[in-house]
Amino acid sequence: MIKAYAAFEAGGELRAYEYDPGVLASHDVEISVEHCGICHSDLSMINNEWGLSEYPLVPGHEVVGTVNAIGGDVRGLAVGQRVGLGWHSDYCFSCSSCHEEDHNLCGSAQGTIVGRHGGFADKVRADYRSVVALPEGVEPASAGPLFCGGITVFNPLVQYDIQAGAKVAVIGIGGLGHLALQFLRAWGCEVTAFTSSESKQIEALALGAHHTVNSTDKQAVKQAAGSFDLILSTVNVPLSWNNYVEALKPKGRLHFVGATLEPLNISAFGLISAQRSISGSPVGSPATIKQMLTFAAKHDISPRTEYFSFVDINKAIQHVAEGKARYRVVLTHDQSLLIQV
Amino acid sequence: MIKAYAAFEAGGELRAYEYDPGVLASHDVEISVEHCGICHSDLSMINNEWGLSEYPLVPGHEVVGTVNAIGGDVRGLAVGQRVGLGWHSDYCFSCSSCHEEDHNLCGSAQGTIVGRHGGFADKVRADYRSVVALPEGVEPASAGPLFCGGITVFNPLVQYDIQAGAKVAVIGIGGLGHLALQFLRAWGCEVTAFTSSESKQIEALALGAHHTVNSTDKQAVKQAAGSFDLILSTVNVPLSWNNYVEALKPKGRLHFVGATLEPLNISAFGLISAQRSISGSPVGSPATIKQMLTFAAKHDISPRTEYFSFVDINKAIQHVAEGKARYRVVLTHDQSLLIQV
Repeated sequence: MIKAYAAFEAGGELRAYEYDPGVLASHDVEISVEHCGICHSDLSMINNEWGLSEYPLVPGHEVVGTVNAIGGDVRGLAVGQRVGLGWHSDYCFSCSSCHEEDHNLCGSAQGTIVGRHGGFADKVRADYRSVVALPEGVEPASAGPLFCGGITVFNPLVQYDIQAGAKVAVIGIGGLGHLALQFLRAWGCEVTAFTSSESKQIEALALGAHHTVNSTDKQAVKQAAGSFDLILSTVNVPLSWNNYVEALKPKGRLHFVGATLEPLNISAFGLISAQRSISGSPVGSPATIKQMLTFAAKHDISPRTEYFSFVDINKAIQHVAEGKARYRVVLTHDQSLLIQV
Repeated sequence: MIKAYAAFEAGGELRAYEYDPGVLASHDVEISVEHCGICHSDLSMINNEWGLSEYPLVPGHEVVGTVNAIGGDVRGLAVGQRVGLGWHSDYCFSCSSCHEEDHNLCGSAQGTIVGRHGGFADKVRADYRSVVALPEGVEPASAGPLFCGGITVFNPLVQYDIQAGAKVAVIGIGGLGHLALQFLRAWGCEVTAFTSSESKQIEALALGAHHTVNSTDKQAVKQAAGSFDLILSTVNVPLSWNNYVEALKPKGRLHFVGATLEPLNISAFGLISAQRSISGSPVGSPATIKQMLTFAAKHDISPRTEYFSFVDINKAIQHVAEGKARYRVVLTHDQSLLIQV
């Protein structure tokens, strides 16, 4: 039996839940969970905001742990090895996206917490090809958030072949944005942080930003016209997007990794006049996750984390829901990580 | 003196207008105009829709003619040579865009009819680096529309490295779209035409489309979900853009070369879920114009044109304004091209 925490209805508190995972499938790995980050999409799934949720629902898709068992067809992973698991737990391995190493765009990819049970548990299972070994130099306790938040902001640098020297801005300095600043600084970019929070403007500089701008100050955004090769938006609130489009250089890109529900209301003229693009992307492929982990290890990049015990799971979720996380909350089975209050 | 046709106020009819162009600048070429296409942006400038117009305004930026005189610093062009001139008449040659051969994105580029006089005239002048020689195999009488309409739809194929075998759709089969179909077919793409006109669906097949879809039939557009690598929109009316975004494959691009004034109302989710982009671009650089002309000559691609005498200029403009052109109107000084009614 796997001992987990599940929501039993949309918006419900999580409660202890045991389930029998059955015989281990030949391509599957069973991970003993050590730590698991809480991502905003766990909250969206608990609340069934996307209409994808099935209850009981075990959230958790920023898993770090050790391999507990492997199926007969698993290659490249061994029992005892320390690994991570992110948003996807399986792919079809036969579509064009999979063939082109874009597994994260596979139309049949399985979400770790969509129709299967996730990492808010003592164990979790996934196809071995979605599980990535943790390299030397990446601290396990704080690594979980790299597997969803981290890869989401790292992936665009690879996808769009961002070069050292590029001028890149990040909108929103939270779970995703604080990792984006670290990656971009180490990538050799000139980094600007757009944030509405004064305290975060100061922290953004410590995280790697060269410059900060108040994201809600329309005049300040307008003054940045023609400045950026890439702007990464990590926020889920509507902003004056056309001002951000104008803040791009010719051929620049405004890329969304955070999704506002409101339509983007983009002016075609702002795109046409300077061959600008707007785009979006979800997480990243296993190959890009490996590349990210190697890069993070080399450049001492890590999520800034606050630890909660699994027994305090509802308190931890509330902390995230209230926007209080600085910058990412991780649930852990390791009591030594918890601050005694 | 140059004998031209000018609008003397916003929306006014064009009347004969003579002006003294002064001494020929050292970098300039004077072209004896043989033919000049009428582009929808000539109408926008006549009507001052973009607030850029200065009167008297001599429109005309799809010029074909012969070099009549050259300034002392002109290289690579000789008197008597047949050339073309499009939307841009000069560039700064010192900005990043110019250095990267993206002259069409130069912030200081001069529009042929913006603050200077265009090709509805017997002569027109431009910097020699914006004037492109017509290669063998391109018919001069119909070539004018290549220099604005043609390059506008050809340029994205180069910019986004579109490969033979790509599935590409064109929305709107008019002055731009009818050229896009020809270029795409010759480029080796699988070509779909979206048009609201039944008669144009049939003509689209003759122009190179493999398939046609009614652009206003939302169900038909929805059925195309996940189909295209690239969709080129040449229309200036609002459509259900999110359905077109969904019609893109993973990593696909919806590219605007026609500008609707209404905001695009794009859903961020449609972009994020499959790493899709929306973008736009204006005309193309002189280098890309050369590449287009060579490609057009090799593949027998030419605008479908209707000819009007310069003395019937207002009738010709009205024909374009009423959307009756099949597919592009060219003013000509060559009386032999005119059909006697």
